[in-house]
Amino acid sequence: MTERLRRRLEFFLETDRMKYVIRRTPVGNVSRKENDAEHSFSLALLAMVLEEYADDNVSIDRVIRMALVHDLIEIYAGDTYVYDQAAMETKAAREDAAAEKLFGMLPREQGKEYEALWREFDAEETADARFAACLDHFQPLLMNYYTGGVSWLEHNVCRSQVVQRMRIIQEVSPILYELVEAMLSDAVRRGWLRDE
Amino acid sequence: MTERLRRRLEFFLETDRMKYVIRRTPVGNVSRKENDAEHSFSLALLAMVLEEYADDNVSIDRVIRMALVHDLIEIYAGDTYVYDQAAMETKAAREDAAAEKLFGMLPREQGKEYEALWREFDAEETADARFAACLDHFQPLLMNYYTGGVSWLEHNVCRSQVVQRMRIIQEVSPILYELVEAMLSDAVRRGWLRDE
Repeated sequence: MTERLRRRLEFFLETDRMKYVIRRTPVGNVSRKENDAEHSFSLALLAMVLEEYADDNVSIDRVIRMALVHDLIEIYAGDTYVYDQAAMETKAAREDAAAEKLFGMLPREQGKEYEALWREFDAEETADARFAACLDHFQPLLMNYYTGGVSWLEHNVCRSQVVQRMRIIQEVSPILYELVEAMLSDAVRRGWLRDE
Repeated sequence: MTERLRRRLEFFLETDRMKYVIRRTPVGNVSRKENDAEHSFSLALLAMVLEEYADDNVSIDRVIRMALVHDLIEIYAGDTYVYDQAAMETKAAREDAAAEKLFGMLPREQGKEYEALWREFDAEETADARFAACLDHFQPLLMNYYTGGVSWLEHNVCRSQVVQRMRIIQEVSPILYELVEAMLSDAVRRGWLRDE
């Protein structure tokens, strides 16, 4: 086995740990929370399914690759809950260290490519990254809504926190944002989200 | 919400059930078996990671899309264990019915596209499908080997059964097949696989 193949397989085996990084979003039958491997699968598939709603300058194939890579650093950095302010303050430093360790396992140019893809996603500046981020916020919202807001109730989340988080959807996809507004209004009406 | 968007979201919510289709392959820490969502994530990521070993006429972006779609029909048809002969005999009929039901949820042309991608994967004839199938056999082998053969021992699997299953790797990627042979020989030596 060549050194390049060995490094790739060691990296791949390490990514199996995505299956133990637990998120706040429940799976559809609310029996447990989803993990990062499942979330990344759902996000990549969602990019395929909603391809029609992306702008013409978006490459869905790049968005799918971003989806597969976007949370890998959480193997070491953990999943940071967006409504946990203290954890959000240390997020960047933890994730930089994780990226260096994880992507450093790959052959040099491939590691650089993955890190660049992750950083592009994280910066939310390019058209591909903005569409990926839009779906990355839309997927948990959809699951939270369809599971009766259990995650919002558990963490005492209010509407304005979610609205702030959904700004990228408003900017990127008016069609999806219309749906977001309808879900949030209904969630408030049902008492799943505090109306603040 | 348009009818097309509604159908897409209903399809997407249905695919969440991939998280409850349990496979025979353990996750890396052997605490449980992996599910289809996790397997599909791993397979799509593996296609990215091993891109260099694909023939020039393979489109990795299409292989990744195939990986995301290749097991969706198992939501209804279940995961058929390759070494369970009785289940393998009813596999095609169960999967055809599942495909009609699942892909029929999507807008017509998108449903046809996904079904075609799944059937292409399943037929193992095109260069893209052959590389995807090669990795779909390589990923569980790698996990079975790195978890000490627990799944082989549990199902009393012998070497010749695995070798037969790995023929596609031999045909598609001599580099990966060299590794397969080394893992199988070592697994037999360690008593994880019966030597038949």
